[in-house]
Amino acid sequence: MNVILLEPEEVSPEGEVTLTGPRARHVLDVLNAGPGQMVRVGMLNGSLGSAVVTASTDRGVSLRCAFTSERPSRPRVDLLLALPRPKVLRRLWAQLAALGVGQIILTNAERVERNYFDTHVLSEACYRPLLIEGLQQARDTWLPGVSIHKQFRILVEDDLTAFFPSGHRLVAHPGSVTTDMRLAGIGSSERILLAVGPEGGWNAFELNLLKAHGFLAFDLGGRTLRTDTACIALVALVHSALRESERSSGSDSI
Amino acid sequence: MNVILLEPEEVSPEGEVTLTGPRARHVLDVLNAGPGQMVRVGMLNGSLGSAVVTASTDRGVSLRCAFTSERPSRPRVDLLLALPRPKVLRRLWAQLAALGVGQIILTNAERVERNYFDTHVLSEACYRPLLIEGLQQARDTWLPGVSIHKQFRILVEDDLTAFFPSGHRLVAHPGSVTTDMRLAGIGSSERILLAVGPEGGWNAFELNLLKAHGFLAFDLGGRTLRTDTACIALVALVHSALRESERSSGSDSI
Repeated sequence: MNVILLEPEEVSPEGEVTLTGPRARHVLDVLNAGPGQMVRVGMLNGSLGSAVVTASTDRGVSLRCAFTSERPSRPRVDLLLALPRPKVLRRLWAQLAALGVGQIILTNAERVERNYFDTHVLSEACYRPLLIEGLQQARDTWLPGVSIHKQFRILVEDDLTAFFPSGHRLVAHPGSVTTDMRLAGIGSSERILLAVGPEGGWNAFELNLLKAHGFLAFDLGGRTLRTDTACIALVALVHSALRESERSSGSDSI
Repeated sequence: MNVILLEPEEVSPEGEVTLTGPRARHVLDVLNAGPGQMVRVGMLNGSLGSAVVTASTDRGVSLRCAFTSERPSRPRVDLLLALPRPKVLRRLWAQLAALGVGQIILTNAERVERNYFDTHVLSEACYRPLLIEGLQQARDTWLPGVSIHKQFRILVEDDLTAFFPSGHRLVAHPGSVTTDMRLAGIGSSERILLAVGPEGGWNAFELNLLKAHGFLAFDLGGRTLRTDTACIALVALVHSALRESERSSGSDSI
């Protein structure tokens, strides 16, 4: 936990908040912060800041927060992910939030088993704390958006534009001609939507529908990875390519 | 399982092998391959090939294999990893093998808890099947080497050269001046040794010792990640940078 995230409704207009539960235990037992000491805080979907511990008991800790104008920018990567097994998805939530994903768009596909949609791992009560755990790890405040779609074709043909109006679309698919992210042309203000298929891959119809809707297929170096490994590797690669692009456009303008 | 890996001693000089257990169940229940059908096989640390199913029963399946001369090249990334929590390491074995790592060098560090060294996850009986699982996922045959070191200083000062005689050394460290992998200068034949610290990071002595032994510190884009997320992201980034480097040196020579 590299920042303690607070919900807007928890904090008084004077910036005061009393924590119990895991965040209080973190302040008391991991940071060993007593009255007068400072801890890093952030407002969910808002600014980062710092807080002074004003009181602590066995059960809780009181903070007085001062938020700065430093608001993290929204991650520029969105993920279109064929719904993975519940066990895999459970592990992915925090890791995706830590890596930085703006919107997580979960979809059905032929090779997604129908009962995957019945899991509690898809309930906000389950995933929201896991996403926040990832943000607290990475010192971010932007809670990823989450949407769940049971009809792949309707999602791609009709609904996707609302989530992702403009930017580059990529689909990871072993055996594609493009063997790496050819992202050289990406401007620094753009977003990337990355599609990752189910174990076993997209079927031909799905892949063609994605291509017909602007997705460039590429191959992650010839190795077929598990969904969770592939997601983490791909999101990291896209972020890295975006940073490279920012840097080179920055140096161009000098 | 995208290839079935065989141990050299399992296979007769005529290329015949009888499988039981998970590999047999995979052939019978997942691939639905009966007598006369072909499956992909590979010899551990050797060549890839194909096999015809010659007989199958409820308990096992017999194959006659033909190996090609196609032997995957050894992954060019090695990993120096501060020993993570057993639960995290258990999850990492297969993912590292799938991503492609030549040597996994596990080390002590100040922020590694001593009891992490007592876990059965460090026994070959535990990790070898997990590494093979990852290879079968990625269709590779190169079993990563594994070594375990309880004295960080002796490892870095005396022993590391034996594992990694030449190549680029990188250490991931939040807050480093270098904010990305500046790998432009890497020749296509070189190897990369990537050092990933414990949760909480390397201490100042450790980081300085690494730098004094040729490790370039860089920052993975300002976000602090969990060890497992960081390992996967970093190994994927280094592989991608190596492919980029190969491609550009390939086009230079045209």
